[in-house]
Amino acid sequence: MGRVTVRRPVLRLSAHGEHHRPDALAAEEPLEIRVDGRALAVTMRTPGHDVELAHGFLLTEGVIGAPADVRTARYCDSVDADGHHTYNVLDLALAEGVPPPDPGVERNFYTTSSCGVCGKAALDAVRLKTRFSPAADPCTITPRVLAALPDILRDRQRVFASTGGLHAAGLFTVAGSPLVVREDVGRHNAVDKALGWALLNARVPLSATVLMVSGRASFELVQKAAMAGIPILAAVSAPSSLAVDLADEQGITLIGFLRGETMNVYAGTNRVCRSDIQSSTAGQGP
Amino acid sequence: MGRVTVRRPVLRLSAHGEHHRPDALAAEEPLEIRVDGRALAVTMRTPGHDVELAHGFLLTEGVIGAPADVRTARYCDSVDADGHHTYNVLDLALAEGVPPPDPGVERNFYTTSSCGVCGKAALDAVRLKTRFSPAADPCTITPRVLAALPDILRDRQRVFASTGGLHAAGLFTVAGSPLVVREDVGRHNAVDKALGWALLNARVPLSATVLMVSGRASFELVQKAAMAGIPILAAVSAPSSLAVDLADEQGITLIGFLRGETMNVYAGTNRVCRSDIQSSTAGQGP
Repeated sequence: MGRVTVRRPVLRLSAHGEHHRPDALAAEEPLEIRVDGRALAVTMRTPGHDVELAHGFLLTEGVIGAPADVRTARYCDSVDADGHHTYNVLDLALAEGVPPPDPGVERNFYTTSSCGVCGKAALDAVRLKTRFSPAADPCTITPRVLAALPDILRDRQRVFASTGGLHAAGLFTVAGSPLVVREDVGRHNAVDKALGWALLNARVPLSATVLMVSGRASFELVQKAAMAGIPILAAVSAPSSLAVDLADEQGITLIGFLRGETMNVYAGTNRVCRSDIQSSTAGQGP
Repeated sequence: MGRVTVRRPVLRLSAHGEHHRPDALAAEEPLEIRVDGRALAVTMRTPGHDVELAHGFLLTEGVIGAPADVRTARYCDSVDADGHHTYNVLDLALAEGVPPPDPGVERNFYTTSSCGVCGKAALDAVRLKTRFSPAADPCTITPRVLAALPDILRDRQRVFASTGGLHAAGLFTVAGSPLVVREDVGRHNAVDKALGWALLNARVPLSATVLMVSGRASFELVQKAAMAGIPILAAVSAPSSLAVDLADEQGITLIGFLRGETMNVYAGTNRVCRSDIQSSTAGQGP
């Protein structure tokens, strides 16, 4: 495979003139995820860690909750026009007794609600689907550990360094030790790859763990954290309103704008130990 | 409606201590798009410009190509638990003779190809669906005009200014005049809102037009440009490999890393007039 980056010619224009040169781009290819032979989703992803991606996707969709829920994962024998294996169709066979997923477009929403879809119904759907309880996780974390996460994430983003074009998701212990970092052109895929790694390594539910993402915190990313039993989600950028609502409801600590020593805690403030900050504030008192 | 931003309490931690304060967040709510009463997609979007969003979505999915292809667009009478209208389900009735969309998950891929899905098949699917021909558009643009676009886009991002949490998409003439700027928590939605505005204002195909986006250029954003007949796509960040491949195949000029006077042209370099840059290079010669 080895298609994580691709070289293409580029014309670079600047105040210093124009230059033709090769440039490394993040690879993007479709991946069709099938369950027992039936197409469930097509996602545009960066090739690599596809088996993790598919496991993470099924975990966060509520289809599976443990490694034993999947019997086999194999690429279909699909070939392109030149007869090369494409590695773009992955079929997962569920273990006996695991109900197949609902392929409908509203599968992530609680559609028996009278309102069709709405924010409340989206929260309800997650509550009905979660197998684990982040709210019950008693772990805590310090601002100092949180402040160090973005640099660790960036240092481990090997493809981003060469292309500038990938989202990253990392799992860390609450002491700040990295467990795994994954990259992808799609932000959801980066998270699914990290969560799939955790599932395959029997680390789900991910108690006492932080999920750190390179971009924003949307409803769907909080949902993915909830489905994996993660108590703390930290993002470099802003959360949305519904992301905060869902974190509140699920008892997840949600941190946004995590930059240097500065951060905003939008939900679950009880998990953030502020003794180091409080003492520095106390030191400034009269 | 008026739910574009939402206020939430936040605990802000920094080297200067901790502060409780209210913070403005970008609103996020699900929107279910129905066609003739049948659910086609659910997208997490920032409320507002929903009719444009739905039109842009159907345009870029290849379902419609002109305002007359949609007979009516109306919110369903859905209410939440408190009896309030949710404005989260929008039903579009197609005009007589317009074929209904394929609701399958592979609907964006040329699945008769032997390879299931692959990059080549994704390109083929776009070629089969496009109604317009960006390749035939003889327009040109100067680096000076391109360099001014990010600032105009940012100046018009009213919600981003208060929340830091929204993607933006803007349509500009090749002379640099803004036509429309739309924001959304989802990058695809911001583009669909702008393109839906153009469709409803009888400006599709968008010849001699630039689509400028605040983030990266993925395959799906180039696909949306192609479906609307847009000859030039500019992005603040990196493109993916498949985005460049599709721009090449569709004859679209693709610009990435557009920052200040510096930019990378990945495809369709012929549309970028370099006389102003060439003269500055000539001035530096021996």
